[in-house]
Amino acid sequence: MEKTKKFLLAESELPKKWYNIVAEMPTKPMPMLHPGTKQPLKNEDLYPLFAKDLADQELNQTDVWIDIPEEVREKLKIYRPTPLVRAYNLEKALGTPAHIYFKNESVSPVGSHKLNSALAQAYYCKKEGTTNITTETGAGQWGTALSFAAKAFGLELAVYMVKISYEQKPYRRSLMQTWGAQVIPSPSMSTKAGRQILTDHPNYQGSLGTAISEAIELAMSTPNCKYTLGSVLNHVSLHQTVIGLEAEKQMEMAGEYPDVVIGCFGGGSNFSGISFPFMRHNINEGKKTRFIAAEPTSCPKLTRGKFEYDFGDEAGYTPLLPMFTLGHSFAPAHIHAGGLRYHGAGTIVSQLMKDGLMEAVDIEQLDSFNAGVLFAQTEGIVPAPESAHAIAAAINEALKCKEEGTTKTILFNLSGHGLVDMTAYDQYLAGDLMNYSLSDKDIENNVSKLEHLV
Amino acid sequence: MEKTKKFLLAESELPKKWYNIVAEMPTKPMPMLHPGTKQPLKNEDLYPLFAKDLADQELNQTDVWIDIPEEVREKLKIYRPTPLVRAYNLEKALGTPAHIYFKNESVSPVGSHKLNSALAQAYYCKKEGTTNITTETGAGQWGTALSFAAKAFGLELAVYMVKISYEQKPYRRSLMQTWGAQVIPSPSMSTKAGRQILTDHPNYQGSLGTAISEAIELAMSTPNCKYTLGSVLNHVSLHQTVIGLEAEKQMEMAGEYPDVVIGCFGGGSNFSGISFPFMRHNINEGKKTRFIAAEPTSCPKLTRGKFEYDFGDEAGYTPLLPMFTLGHSFAPAHIHAGGLRYHGAGTIVSQLMKDGLMEAVDIEQLDSFNAGVLFAQTEGIVPAPESAHAIAAAINEALKCKEEGTTKTILFNLSGHGLVDMTAYDQYLAGDLMNYSLSDKDIENNVSKLEHLV
Repeated sequence: MEKTKKFLLAESELPKKWYNIVAEMPTKPMPMLHPGTKQPLKNEDLYPLFAKDLADQELNQTDVWIDIPEEVREKLKIYRPTPLVRAYNLEKALGTPAHIYFKNESVSPVGSHKLNSALAQAYYCKKEGTTNITTETGAGQWGTALSFAAKAFGLELAVYMVKISYEQKPYRRSLMQTWGAQVIPSPSMSTKAGRQILTDHPNYQGSLGTAISEAIELAMSTPNCKYTLGSVLNHVSLHQTVIGLEAEKQMEMAGEYPDVVIGCFGGGSNFSGISFPFMRHNINEGKKTRFIAAEPTSCPKLTRGKFEYDFGDEAGYTPLLPMFTLGHSFAPAHIHAGGLRYHGAGTIVSQLMKDGLMEAVDIEQLDSFNAGVLFAQTEGIVPAPESAHAIAAAINEALKCKEEGTTKTILFNLSGHGLVDMTAYDQYLAGDLMNYSLSDKDIENNVSKLEHLV
Repeated sequence: MEKTKKFLLAESELPKKWYNIVAEMPTKPMPMLHPGTKQPLKNEDLYPLFAKDLADQELNQTDVWIDIPEEVREKLKIYRPTPLVRAYNLEKALGTPAHIYFKNESVSPVGSHKLNSALAQAYYCKKEGTTNITTETGAGQWGTALSFAAKAFGLELAVYMVKISYEQKPYRRSLMQTWGAQVIPSPSMSTKAGRQILTDHPNYQGSLGTAISEAIELAMSTPNCKYTLGSVLNHVSLHQTVIGLEAEKQMEMAGEYPDVVIGCFGGGSNFSGISFPFMRHNINEGKKTRFIAAEPTSCPKLTRGKFEYDFGDEAGYTPLLPMFTLGHSFAPAHIHAGGLRYHGAGTIVSQLMKDGLMEAVDIEQLDSFNAGVLFAQTEGIVPAPESAHAIAAAINEALKCKEEGTTKTILFNLSGHGLVDMTAYDQYLAGDLMNYSLSDKDIENNVSKLEHLV
């Protein structure tokens, strides 16, 4: 009898509905607040900026299941369902009795899970007659995903890319341009916000906060234009649940159910995607699966941050979100896992964390690369630096099983590959990478400013 | 009824045997000749350089089917079977009645089909007790594939990488190093051949010919060491037939049979892989499928070369091979499809070409990138510059169908993705790429030197 390594689903088994965990949470997240009035946010407050359907999904607390439009499913089929893989070779290298599985989102043509939400967002924008969309991108994963999605649905896209990434990650920029997007290094002269910053600091290398401000300003000042975001928000997590819904069926094919589910954690979208569909069985049927968010030691909002109302962006333009945060002025170290360099966690995950429905661990940069290289050498796939955090956490759990002599089933999300991040591996192999530590005071300084926000 | 886009096979349907077309060819290829004696090559002549099993496969003219070792199948399952995809979005963009399918070899963790033979070669070397292997790489696709394969079977690998690629393609180098290989820019001081060239031309940027000489020299002078090659040879084509064997089953799932099968053409390995399993039905059952090798206009051995005995390398160390060639001293223009810059075609393909069992077309560099960008924007996957030649040829066939109003079934091999080749797309988008033309005299000058070789 041959051992099966990859568990595959037919296209017809691609989920037809997204899972909206908010509808089943024992405690609902506290409301997002309007930044001006400090009143709970209403759907209409979001309509100027986001496509109406996306705004409605963002605040939907009642529907457990939300239909995936057929047009979105058609495009998802370009790469979905993605494989669930048993990491036999990694298990063997670790000498662990644990069974390790990973969901392989790296097979997406853009190389990461980001396309799951990009396609949905582009579709809803197109559907309501929008012709142009804007967004920002840091490391570039979201920008590349949205570039293909915009092209797939016939939208014009402008991406504000943090200037230092624009210069250091030319492959990401080329990818976006190949798919037809306009890519503008931020800060730029194309917006008031950008011009202001360039006037004050002509050599400013950019930040995600600035890029968000520019993308929002362009969207608000362009006819038929909407803004889009690749993580943090509820509707993004919603779209990512296809990951876990597929994985659920595939674990069944493998004849197992996960004791531990792990995702790396930046804004929360890939973690939510792999976790929420399994977490519903904890909520509804008393299953005892553990859910672990793996965040970088240098940006530890879940392990060391504070639960407070805070802004989603540096400049303070977004609604106030109840979340675990390091403070919106927190400047994370320049680790290579750019997608994990975000100060806060989404409101759903923050509430789940508060309620003890999930846990978090922090991973040092060097440990993440150790894990990434071991994974590449055993399972073949060079992981994205972000995903390497999930691998490191999975390895830690598997080694605990070895110590204890227990056979647990560990599932992690391989959110993307690292083929466009090879400079990071280069520096690691050359011994040029370091860890970053934060003192309690570093954190307290930023978080203490939040108390008077609400 | 949902339309199926991707046709998937279970792991258990991964082929158990390779297809050896030589055993069924109406005219066998003329023998390879020993470069010293000019006598037909015997198996023993190859044993010092290649693993014995590979040497035996190279000269096997009798067995139609050759078992794939279970150990190789286990590793192939990391990414195989690969999907067969119906390119609905591309068809729509072209407005063609043709049905276009592609076999997606880009899902391999190294990004191309090269891993199919790398795993087999590494396995046979390991099996006979070899501890070290060597190879050369130009653009880097073969080197990256062999790096992972060597690690997977516990072999030490030294890759001689053409110096200009070593410097211009740092991502490829990092990938090889991440998988644990030694990468040496060629020419190097580590071999007599390299030292000689560096003494004569200190600033020489390297060539595949020189890198082959260095890799062979290191293999011959290291205990327990064998040399490996990623294309041209019969055993490499043999290993690649898993592509076509899977595609055959998948086309059956789609309820179609290809009228046209297309692969890009460098040394011939991916073209052979997709074509030979279908070609056997032309040979044995009188099917009329057309097989088209898509080569670059700047390196047109099949469309404008001459059938002659020639060396496989620039320096003239290899056996003499009966092949369509531009002459081993031919220096192709520096197109971005580095994997197609080879002066000759393998002996099997050359004989098939001579016998009219297949045909060839040439594709201009700009046409290949036009096709590549259209493919990326419709099907999502940014193709390798090499694979873009196959796409261009498929588009040409599909447009002919549109003109004629005929519905043909076109199958091409997407041999790899271009995520590590984005500088090429950058230059294309910037308008900095050009076509290269060759005069008859350019070609004649090189080919005329071959007549006195045998």
